[in-house]
Amino acid sequence: MKKLINAVDDIVNDSLRGFGLAHPDHIRVDAQNRVVLRADAPRQGKVGLVSGGGSGHEPMHSGFVGVGMLDAACAGQVFTSPTPDQMLAATTAVDGGAGVLHIVKNYTGDVMNFEMAAELAAEAGIEVESVVVDDDVAVTDSLYTAGRRGVGLTVLLEKIVGAAAEEGRDLATCAGLARTVIAQGRSMGMALTSCTVPAAGRPTVDLADDEMEVGIGIHGEPGRERRPIASAKEVAAMLVQPILADLDFTDAPVIVMLNGMGGTPLLELYIMYAEVADLLRAKGVEVARCLVGNYITSLEMAGCSLTLLKADDDLLTLWDAPANTPGLRWGC
Amino acid sequence: MKKLINAVDDIVNDSLRGFGLAHPDHIRVDAQNRVVLRADAPRQGKVGLVSGGGSGHEPMHSGFVGVGMLDAACAGQVFTSPTPDQMLAATTAVDGGAGVLHIVKNYTGDVMNFEMAAELAAEAGIEVESVVVDDDVAVTDSLYTAGRRGVGLTVLLEKIVGAAAEEGRDLATCAGLARTVIAQGRSMGMALTSCTVPAAGRPTVDLADDEMEVGIGIHGEPGRERRPIASAKEVAAMLVQPILADLDFTDAPVIVMLNGMGGTPLLELYIMYAEVADLLRAKGVEVARCLVGNYITSLEMAGCSLTLLKADDDLLTLWDAPANTPGLRWGC
Repeated sequence: MKKLINAVDDIVNDSLRGFGLAHPDHIRVDAQNRVVLRADAPRQGKVGLVSGGGSGHEPMHSGFVGVGMLDAACAGQVFTSPTPDQMLAATTAVDGGAGVLHIVKNYTGDVMNFEMAAELAAEAGIEVESVVVDDDVAVTDSLYTAGRRGVGLTVLLEKIVGAAAEEGRDLATCAGLARTVIAQGRSMGMALTSCTVPAAGRPTVDLADDEMEVGIGIHGEPGRERRPIASAKEVAAMLVQPILADLDFTDAPVIVMLNGMGGTPLLELYIMYAEVADLLRAKGVEVARCLVGNYITSLEMAGCSLTLLKADDDLLTLWDAPANTPGLRWGC
Repeated sequence: MKKLINAVDDIVNDSLRGFGLAHPDHIRVDAQNRVVLRADAPRQGKVGLVSGGGSGHEPMHSGFVGVGMLDAACAGQVFTSPTPDQMLAATTAVDGGAGVLHIVKNYTGDVMNFEMAAELAAEAGIEVESVVVDDDVAVTDSLYTAGRRGVGLTVLLEKIVGAAAEEGRDLATCAGLARTVIAQGRSMGMALTSCTVPAAGRPTVDLADDEMEVGIGIHGEPGRERRPIASAKEVAAMLVQPILADLDFTDAPVIVMLNGMGGTPLLELYIMYAEVADLLRAKGVEVARCLVGNYITSLEMAGCSLTLLKADDDLLTLWDAPANTPGLRWGC
């Protein structure tokens, strides 16, 4: 296993320490609870946005803490849910009296632990709403979920709902907006190579030199099928078609994210984006905005995922609003 | 070879096409010449900044075209210098009457071709100055260079001199500032794995499962030594010590870049940053600003590089000035 680490057990703590040293203007790190907090949290009167999950998907979620996105992110061990205690600490730290929204990716551990944290927070007098992102069309149930997995749409949701909270919308409105995003967004991913979870020390899946996994999850869990590697044009079709088969994207402008899984060069991501853009145009989908890069990764996995979100004027305005976080920054 | 591409010969053209589709607000692509131009080029009265080099190092240079950085970037084939014709086309397209600065990384092909392009531009009546970046302390001469190689400092130089050109400084001043940056900056890199150049189809260097290359170049060319893989703390020392041995960094605030080579997760880069920050503090180096992420890559190579730049108040102000490019964005 080749990784730039000290001890396997210290990976998340060591990385959070570096994150805190690198970004003091944006965030502060609660090392005890492994929570990344917006530097100026709590903001009085603003809905607090809390997310989190297993580490290894950076910049998500810690990189999206800051102005216009999250107020806190809870970092679990690599590919392991954070604990309810972490989530409660984050919720308490960002509550500014307007309530807190939990943004949860649909994995059994995350859902269960965020539910428990919400109950504990409610007992402490904090109003909490929760939304569960389940945008991955690849599989219905999976190794780690009942229902679809939560993947790339989470990035778009955190940007859009983050902007809504920043401009002062209330908890019910932010939660409703998040549910609209979830209803209107879909994703599909693929991988050329496996990642290696540090605690395991060997690749999660065995992919031969001429194989790829279509529909893979962000932890290397199985997708729809293993296939011979194909051209960028063919791979683009394998991502676009299942998404369009799941939801009609021709009736509204669309925000597109072409996301790298961590080990794919930007040179290749832009080749994929060109192919995706061609296909969407041919299918009558209007691309209003796009984002290309590594935003929700799977350690060093080579591959990519595609996310589409139908966006009305309100969503586009929120998308364009300023964000100033370590991982996503524009308009400010 | 596992890559998200169509044909090997089309990689750069296909990727530039996607880049143009993704970033119409920032740039436009001259597909014929494989040149990425700032959307509003030429800017009358502004010094034009042109860089370029082999592809495969993205986001450098194409990702740094935009407000506050470059006016144009010439894309060669993967790890191959662009031609003088490309450089001349870029120079002509961005000349707004105030002259053009060529920012050249020290590789024999790049230096030779930019020299020829500068002569051709001068014949066409365009005033051109050139600077050659040679910040890599790993080796004195190398496979592809006479003198030190040009690596990560180029990112910092393009940000700082880009801001100077944006605020209207003249060509001689911009060139002088670039030379100051070159005199005051140093870099050192390492790799855990090789990249695979598409045209070759196999890894550039053979690194065993327990080996790393210290001082590696951005094309996988040899460094100082091959060693057993070591902890993040030990690797940080292997990067910091040669840089501090080459130049005194204790007499001014320092801008630090901890750069990923393309295949290293952010989780690991922040672990490395924590170790680097510790070492610099122990050595009496004051970190004024830092940048952690993938800015000058080597395709999917796993590894990282460290760049230090001594910065006075003027350089820090230019560093902090707004940049709005696909690959680097802040303050705007």
